[in-house]
Amino acid sequence: MKKPETEKEFARKWVSYRPEIKVVDVTIRDGGLMNNHRFNDDVVRGVYDACVQAGLDYMEIGYKGSRRIFSADEYGPWKFCDEKDVRRIVGSNETPLKLCVMADAERCDYQEDIPPKKDSVIDMVRVATYIHQIPIALDMLQDAHEKGYETTVNLMAASTVPESELEEALELLAASPVDAIYLVDSFGAFYSEQVHYLLELYLRHAAERGKAVGMHAHNNQQLAYANTIEAAIKGANFLDSSMAGLGRGAGNCQTELLLGFLHNPKYRLRPVLQCIQEVIEPMRTELRWGFDIPYMITGFLNQHPRAAMEFNAGNDHGDLVKFFDSIVGSE
Amino acid sequence: MKKPETEKEFARKWVSYRPEIKVVDVTIRDGGLMNNHRFNDDVVRGVYDACVQAGLDYMEIGYKGSRRIFSADEYGPWKFCDEKDVRRIVGSNETPLKLCVMADAERCDYQEDIPPKKDSVIDMVRVATYIHQIPIALDMLQDAHEKGYETTVNLMAASTVPESELEEALELLAASPVDAIYLVDSFGAFYSEQVHYLLELYLRHAAERGKAVGMHAHNNQQLAYANTIEAAIKGANFLDSSMAGLGRGAGNCQTELLLGFLHNPKYRLRPVLQCIQEVIEPMRTELRWGFDIPYMITGFLNQHPRAAMEFNAGNDHGDLVKFFDSIVGSE
Repeated sequence: MKKPETEKEFARKWVSYRPEIKVVDVTIRDGGLMNNHRFNDDVVRGVYDACVQAGLDYMEIGYKGSRRIFSADEYGPWKFCDEKDVRRIVGSNETPLKLCVMADAERCDYQEDIPPKKDSVIDMVRVATYIHQIPIALDMLQDAHEKGYETTVNLMAASTVPESELEEALELLAASPVDAIYLVDSFGAFYSEQVHYLLELYLRHAAERGKAVGMHAHNNQQLAYANTIEAAIKGANFLDSSMAGLGRGAGNCQTELLLGFLHNPKYRLRPVLQCIQEVIEPMRTELRWGFDIPYMITGFLNQHPRAAMEFNAGNDHGDLVKFFDSIVGSE
Repeated sequence: MKKPETEKEFARKWVSYRPEIKVVDVTIRDGGLMNNHRFNDDVVRGVYDACVQAGLDYMEIGYKGSRRIFSADEYGPWKFCDEKDVRRIVGSNETPLKLCVMADAERCDYQEDIPPKKDSVIDMVRVATYIHQIPIALDMLQDAHEKGYETTVNLMAASTVPESELEEALELLAASPVDAIYLVDSFGAFYSEQVHYLLELYLRHAAERGKAVGMHAHNNQQLAYANTIEAAIKGANFLDSSMAGLGRGAGNCQTELLLGFLHNPKYRLRPVLQCIQEVIEPMRTELRWGFDIPYMITGFLNQHPRAAMEFNAGNDHGDLVKFFDSIVGSE
């Protein structure tokens, strides 16, 4: 429909085919926040098989959580991603799919718990950090890099960080050995305007050091997919998504929507649909993720979805006005 | 977070407050496509009261359908919007809320069935037309205008219209007495790129004749709200939305999301949430509107959602792979 008027515009038309784009499936990792990472093996294997068959680039299989902080009684295996647990699902992963784990700053004994790459089937360590934890994150990135992993850094809750601090953080991160820096909309609070602006800021710092930029969105305002596309248009090459959007609270950018947008023929939609139907949807009643109005309200207010998650798990579930009044104050 | 760099950019920051923006609630009209317009009076009154309390600008209460084509045995009162039915709900509508009805080209006996404005509580007639029906639509617009109504024209399925024809249609419509010309994404097929491009095209034709542009989106790709914001940013001043997105198939831009974006204090979110909770959500099991994967697939393919609606109503409901194979062909 569109007549391209300049070469740049013409090239942008094909953003959806850009070969540098990598899709990172976060279904099990982010979804694990809804069930304390207690997925059974069939679920994890179902998602893994679907990622392989769909031609996705990375699958994030869980966290490297500290056993000093998190009890194995309370949390399932995907909170820790012990090598034996991962290999029980993926064997030695003789596929083009790369595997990643998330390591939270201050909640991961990375020096001990992350083995050298040669002893692990994991390909990439993704360091999640709040702005005040950047010094620790830098040490974690250095550690993972020296052990032989690809790395990303996911600077969480960017919507709450003053821009001057963000600039400093990006400068430090860009100077680290990290491969990609993520724009993370933890609270699902961004509109396209913020995504455009911040993505350009991230890219300005990252690109001059030869690093990529990624996008991780939440669906509180039903903009996770829309904002992920906008990030791709602006130059993000690592795009996080999950099957049926499974993820904390309102969930993530849906893989099935993202594959509809991406026109690289290496991606296939059908295995994703099959996984959603057979593996993901049967968990919906129990896990209750996805866009809803309490999550929308925390998104509007640029807040952690904690209050909405508690409300949805409680007896007043469905009393939207009560939640609104409790958060916003009655009119 | 954003430092405005130019005056224009500064002004655009406040697009969400622009006083010219009008919110048009289409819950009962578009939602009626899911139940043959058989809402009971409590539902219609609940939506009307919520529109008034929320400070919305217009409420579309139904169609002016032809009784020669549509039987009152098969369709409820909101397919016809007889004056007595409308007044049973709104009385003489002594509120700031304006009321509108939709009149489909070739499916409305407009000359007989639309009374002079002085005899009606309706304020605006919205003429819905496919591209090949433009000559009839022009006659309908003239008729409604002469009878004393505000008018809009909703050029449906714009995603399927060759651009040369679109230009001609817009030129004709801009020369008519219509007050606003709508960009309508009937199939939920647009990305932001198309919205930006087409909105500018519509605005170019409309603005030089002093007319407004509107946006009516469907949520097949979960972009109805995102695209409605993008349209507003580009200058659309009539924004269609519905409570909880109730509308045909994947539904429309959600009023609750749109009010979160709009910062004009005349709008209030709480009455919308109350209406959703008490009036709309109780219908969800029966009406089954809203984003789902069959609708997503018809959106990808820029098709009418008919096939997905039939599939969702049938015994194979939930067999996503079967639907995918039936539409796309098996891999």
